[in-house]
Amino acid sequence: MDNFVSYNPTALHFGKGVIDKLSETIPQYGKRVLFVYGKGSVKRSGLYDKIMSQLLKSGMEVFEYEGIKPNPKVDDVDAAAVIGREKNVDVILAVGGGSVIDSAKIISITIPVNHSAWDFYTYRAKPKVSVPLIAVLTLAATGTEMNPFAVLQNEKTGRKDGYRSDLIFPRHSFLDPEVTYSVPANYTAYGISDLIAHCFENYFSKGDCSLSDRFIFSIINDAVEWGPKLMNNLCGYDERAAIMYDATMALNLLTSNGKDGGDWGVHGMGHILSLLYEVPHGASLSIVFPAWMKLHCERAGERISRLGKNIFGTSDVDETIASFEAFFEQIGSPVRLSQVGIGADKHEAIIHLWIRNKAEGGNFKLKEYDYRKLIELMA
Amino acid sequence: MDNFVSYNPTALHFGKGVIDKLSETIPQYGKRVLFVYGKGSVKRSGLYDKIMSQLLKSGMEVFEYEGIKPNPKVDDVDAAAVIGREKNVDVILAVGGGSVIDSAKIISITIPVNHSAWDFYTYRAKPKVSVPLIAVLTLAATGTEMNPFAVLQNEKTGRKDGYRSDLIFPRHSFLDPEVTYSVPANYTAYGISDLIAHCFENYFSKGDCSLSDRFIFSIINDAVEWGPKLMNNLCGYDERAAIMYDATMALNLLTSNGKDGGDWGVHGMGHILSLLYEVPHGASLSIVFPAWMKLHCERAGERISRLGKNIFGTSDVDETIASFEAFFEQIGSPVRLSQVGIGADKHEAIIHLWIRNKAEGGNFKLKEYDYRKLIELMA
Repeated sequence: MDNFVSYNPTALHFGKGVIDKLSETIPQYGKRVLFVYGKGSVKRSGLYDKIMSQLLKSGMEVFEYEGIKPNPKVDDVDAAAVIGREKNVDVILAVGGGSVIDSAKIISITIPVNHSAWDFYTYRAKPKVSVPLIAVLTLAATGTEMNPFAVLQNEKTGRKDGYRSDLIFPRHSFLDPEVTYSVPANYTAYGISDLIAHCFENYFSKGDCSLSDRFIFSIINDAVEWGPKLMNNLCGYDERAAIMYDATMALNLLTSNGKDGGDWGVHGMGHILSLLYEVPHGASLSIVFPAWMKLHCERAGERISRLGKNIFGTSDVDETIASFEAFFEQIGSPVRLSQVGIGADKHEAIIHLWIRNKAEGGNFKLKEYDYRKLIELMA
Repeated sequence: MDNFVSYNPTALHFGKGVIDKLSETIPQYGKRVLFVYGKGSVKRSGLYDKIMSQLLKSGMEVFEYEGIKPNPKVDDVDAAAVIGREKNVDVILAVGGGSVIDSAKIISITIPVNHSAWDFYTYRAKPKVSVPLIAVLTLAATGTEMNPFAVLQNEKTGRKDGYRSDLIFPRHSFLDPEVTYSVPANYTAYGISDLIAHCFENYFSKGDCSLSDRFIFSIINDAVEWGPKLMNNLCGYDERAAIMYDATMALNLLTSNGKDGGDWGVHGMGHILSLLYEVPHGASLSIVFPAWMKLHCERAGERISRLGKNIFGTSDVDETIASFEAFFEQIGSPVRLSQVGIGADKHEAIIHLWIRNKAEGGNFKLKEYDYRKLIELMA
């Protein structure tokens, strides 16, 4: 077991009606709040009105940044940080899915400085403080609600990268499964793929910790049990709750303890598909992962076999990979590039950015010839 | 799934040599440290000298409280708090097992007040602040290193009770498996029983959360895999590390999320055995739990069966209970009162305190006739 530090100070408020506690939580951090959200669904669903009335009732002064986009952009983060800086906000409230909360995390460290957020991503600058962040999650997928990670893309430089800092843990996150009832079937499925992919990334790490592997199997098994039930019942409370909790636990550092940080090559490759063709994050992962496992069916054979034994009751490597493919297809998450409209004419552009962005993985480091085999397997 | 709040701010530093980081961590909280430890093993093992030299090297002013006893007493806590108050300490360093760290937790909220620690246990007083606490764990068992619980006993009033407050989470806990090499076989085994019992208590709660149950099975399976290996190799790093990490995760709130807080009746009954006859905590649990399951083989039949299926591959209730009994015996933890020298002449005294202390459990509430059946089953 590798040495590790386990630290996660986020308070996770989970269950029916927890959003009503916002009005007692936010004022603990001050009066001036930057309210950050996306492009429409928060207003359509009525969540915006519900939260705004709580903010006003508790006497908060509210400044808004509306319009964070999927696959969030550094330009939005920089623009929101300007508002937060000018208005001297005490606290940030992020309401949305991974894109909104990831953006808000980086906004929280960009407000106190005088440069672009991207300087953190290029390690030209290091954050020293952050504005307290409170999150309300509307989509079960990325786990950002309880971790120190944030992914941004920079269209000028053609990069989509992850960033880690203990300063960007949300202080509180509010997760009401009922809020996710309105998430459409396709994004519900991509969320399930995303959480399972997070388990895979940590599972295929360099290190070895039997309990972390057992936790990984637990989360995957829970998602394999509840995922199809949820797809058949998008407004089922138990179904939404199970998947929402699975997604949080899949990437809140629990599963990486003692395992040396994960591989993350598939995420790197998936990010390129999102960057180039706006493929939803979870969909990109259900395309890349089965192909990645096929590529590694010898090198990671023992691990894939153990995974199969613990999830599907088979130790056969090919059968395990086929079972995951079938699972992703069953819930409605794509497993081939052709299913998201990416033809063979795009392969070179994809490989080019995989190489340039070093989307190779921390453990099973890929080379150019691996990329070429891989893209055939996912065509 | 019940609503829950998941919050655990302790930074857990796990692995070889982590204690060397004490000298950078402690000074963050101030210069004046109250160093709390037990009766001898910390000095015998050389750990005392190692830590003291780090404290002095980093310029700390050290005040000591030596002699915290197993099954810790409120008198020690009150006496240590007087020292902490008089010396105006900035931080507490607790080095030991559950008794020392539990005591230090209550010392941390007693220093700022002017009454006995026991007033917290009787809810006559409520803590408002705590002195920061840093723990070095020397025994894998109770999980206190990463939770908000502390158990104390009061010999004057004949009670042994648990207390919970978010103020008593250690800020940092340092867990080096090598430090536990010197723990003798019997206490090593009792620690394994203790951690498994913590899983049981949460498993037999009122609430239902499939992922928390899966995490519980993960921890028990890990302990069932590594426990016997450890008993055969008391200085094995991998073995010590696995059991040490299992014990932390078994009671750091992870396994109670969505499950309504656990039963804890067996702990209540075990505490009475410790209070009356100084039975080591973990040993008391391996005696009571199999009997408790036998008593509930119908009422909790489905749960015991599911437990058996996930741990031993059998759905048979009797076989499951017998397998756990055999496991406890295999590692050297007692499963009968007679094995710890408690004869039938003591039964009435035990039952008397079980009734008086309401050691009934939050879910499967026991009545007097249950106690009478139970004590026969554990005789």
